Amino acid sequence: MQNERQSIEISLKNSAVFSIGEKAFLDKLIDQSQIHIFPKGHVIFTHEEQAKRFFIIKSGWVKLYRETLDGTQAIIDIINAGQMFGEAAMFSGGVYNCSAEAAEEAMLVSLPLALLKSEIETNGKLALALLQSTAQKREEQSREIEHQFLQNASQRIGCFILRLANQNKPGGIVIHLPYDKMLVAARLGMQPETFSRALAKLREETGIRVKGATVEMDSLEQLSNYACSACSSGFPCKDKATVVC
Amino acid sequence: MQNERQSIEISLKNSAVFSIGEKAFLDKLIDQSQIHIFPKGHVIFTHEEQAKRFFIIKSGWVKLYRETLDGTQAIIDIINAGQMFGEAAMFSGGVYNCSAEAAEEAMLVSLPLALLKSEIETNGKLALALLQSTAQKREEQSREIEHQFLQNASQRIGCFILRLANQNKPGGIVIHLPYDKMLVAARLGMQPETFSRALAKLREETGIRVKGATVEMDSLEQLSNYACSACSSGFPCKDKATVVC
Repeated sequence: MQNERQSIEISLKNSAVFSIGEKAFLDKLIDQSQIHIFPKGHVIFTHEEQAKRFFIIKSGWVKLYRETLDGTQAIIDIINAGQMFGEAAMFSGGVYNCSAEAAEEAMLVSLPLALLKSEIETNGKLALALLQSTAQKREEQSREIEHQFLQNASQRIGCFILRLANQNKPGGIVIHLPYDKMLVAARLGMQPETFSRALAKLREETGIRVKGATVEMDSLEQLSNYACSACSSGFPCKDKATVVC
Repeated sequence: MQNERQSIEISLKNSAVFSIGEKAFLDKLIDQSQIHIFPKGHVIFTHEEQAKRFFIIKSGWVKLYRETLDGTQAIIDIINAGQMFGEAAMFSGGVYNCSAEAAEEAMLVSLPLALLKSEIETNGKLALALLQSTAQKREEQSREIEHQFLQNASQRIGCFILRLANQNKPGGIVIHLPYDKMLVAARLGMQPETFSRALAKLREETGIRVKGATVEMDSLEQLSNYACSACSSGFPCKDKATVVC
């Protein structure tokens, strides 16, 4: 199908890692690619499963998580269009290092891991692009560890909201939470009741208005004054690439 | 000095990234390397400083951290012999993405960042080795984020101690904390008083005995039963490479 092929090509060219790929390699990838549409809640792969393919998100949200021995779920990340996942299995003995589930209906392109692996062994440019993307993810995680140490729960919710906003737009702001509020709580590592209390405190401290999945404020100033004092990046966020949408 | 040269060569060959390097490249690295001995507390570089060199630890401990706008310090990591730092500046616009300080007296080898950068652009094997090491760091961080979400403070101290132990040795265990107890608290993102309370609870729950910087126990079993139920890796740690010493 020509259209599907074109659509996959666009996804690859829009992704940070494959945008630099030569035509011959991209053609090989497209030949072996598949498109998947998964409903909300569908488990894409599970932690420690043998990894055959990796994925690029075309649309929707994907939750990456692990389960502990006592059955609790820890959400590692919730990612969206343009982002890649499952490729790190190359470096963890060929098994996925977490589970993946569609957090909302998701359209994905999947590609064979073996093809990526053999190509990066000989293609320095591709290895470098993957290195750049991995280093950036590492940087995001390190910021997250910092925030867990230094920000209180309300500041962490404030930071989450700020990262969804266009930080250079002056005046009134309306933001739509990208997924279920309870999933936002879990993404931030909070129990639902902690999240509710912290959100109530955030409203009080900053004057933001929350109605269902919509957050409104007159400007970003109060929110950034409140949340960004406990962050080494400051406002506007210097690690812009981590802005979710 | 022949001895210094040999000593640097050994450090490079022992590091995960440079062990695969060809002789010509290693020689070039050694020619441009320097050895530094820094006393405890010496600031090696600061966050957002222009990065000229990166470092490999020969001995001692190095603290990586950031400071927030309101002056609080967040410890990103505390690393030791064989580990590399500062190289990620390549991927953050040529400036260091955190500060580094000798946590104990440290002997370091420093190397020019420009040399590493130009080499990985043409040397696929080296890019792949760096990719592998970056992916592993990312995996460690993701485990850390998981633990902050799911383990309580006592379990996190228990996990820290377990990772210092030889997990395959049966019977009695004696562990020496590698650096100052208050630095362990900060590394785990805890206030000193939280750390003291959590350590007291851990002693009560698992029967470990703590005297100054020494931790003793009759076996690892009680400690692992207590800490590892809230971890997706289980016991013994599957991500063995992250064992600190």
